[in-house]
Amino acid sequence: MHHQSKISVSTAGRGSYELTDQVLRVVRESGIEVGLCVVTCLHTSASLLVTECADPSVQVDLRSWLERLAPDGDSLYTHTAEGPDDMPSHLKAAITRSTETLSVAAGALVLGVWQGLFLLEHRARPHQREVFVHVTGDPAG
Amino acid sequence: MHHQSKISVSTAGRGSYELTDQVLRVVRESGIEVGLCVVTCLHTSASLLVTECADPSVQVDLRSWLERLAPDGDSLYTHTAEGPDDMPSHLKAAITRSTETLSVAAGALVLGVWQGLFLLEHRARPHQREVFVHVTGDPAG
Amino acid sequence: MHHQSKISVSTAGRGSYELTDQVLRVVRESGIEVGLCVVTCLHTSASLLVTECADPSVQVDLRSWLERLAPDGDSLYTHTAEGPDDMPSHLKAAITRSTETLSVAAGALVLGVWQGLFLLEHRARPHQREVFVHVTGDPAG
Repeated sequence: MHHQSKISVSTAGRGSYELTDQVLRVVRESGIEVGLCVVTCLHTSASLLVTECADPSVQVDLRSWLERLAPDGDSLYTHTAEGPDDMPSHLKAAITRSTETLSVAAGALVLGVWQGLFLLEHRARPHQREVFVHVTGDPAG
Repeated sequence: MHHQSKISVSTAGRGSYELTDQVLRVVRESGIEVGLCVVTCLHTSASLLVTECADPSVQVDLRSWLERLAPDGDSLYTHTAEGPDDMPSHLKAAITRSTETLSVAAGALVLGVWQGLFLLEHRARPHQREVFVHVTGDPAG
Repeated sequence: MHHQSKISVSTAGRGSYELTDQVLRVVRESGIEVGLCVVTCLHTSASLLVTECADPSVQVDLRSWLERLAPDGDSLYTHTAEGPDDMPSHLKAAITRSTETLSVAAGALVLGVWQGLFLLEHRARPHQREVFVHVTGDPAG
């Protein structure tokens, strides 16, 4: 069976927004006990990442490091019409994930103790982001 | 049900080659209305990426930026037997994707308005690339 | 049908550990002929990567390059409580993969001739790593 749903995230601009609980809620709604959960970020200047969820300083450093790799307003960019933070947002999205596939076991997401699923907002300003969640598998027998 | 097919892409060397329509054609051939579509690039010096498909300058900047991150002929490389553009191609493939999983809904790929699926050719010279497309799910009921 | 299993990897510290054969063994145990195989690394300082498996110098260069991108003890990091190699390990994991989805055809993994699936250990010291393998699909008919 298949269950599809959308999550809306209102971001306050650049940063990490944890989605683990909202995605788990969709898994529970689906009634699926064992299967797969495919999450898609429907944007090209925001992305997904499974990373450390316990200490917020990890998200701070991730953001600083991505900004060093792909700085705003770099002279390398020719795609500048949408602002100095647009092209670096596409680059940061390119090296993280637009879709993430997780296993479902016992009606829950299979993740390590310190792992969480995050939406990364790469644009400087607040945005409304849509995340598609697709759960497929078998219900409790 | 499962439907598997291969797409061949003749690249003209380094650059982005959009695959969205060809992958969608495989989804339509499959007759699957709701399910998953797993795309695999069967090479280690080319890769896949879901990114901005509207303005070609995004692909130009992506390429320049990847070349800055992993330049041809960098003195760091010890794997040089296959040419100065071989090891940086493996590195660029490593930070983009070898497989990409997309949801299928209403017989189409679930992607945002500005998202397209691209094959990234990282080698300087033209290559023949094979992409495996696997659609699984349920046909129209 | 679904088959789920865990692989344990004892790493000797930083480096690449090929998992292709162990994952294939799980696919064979499952009896599934056509389907998907989702592999999840249950840690945030180790990750997965499909890359060149023939020449070990590729792994050496990949490691050197990741260390250049995210050096130990960089002054950018504020997350330093777990040692100088902890935050760079999260960063290296962020730009490679925590989950990888492979197709299964004829009871085997769909990979190119030169592709292998690796666990990347990013921490300096040896660690015990757990990898979750989920095979779903249809048995031989």
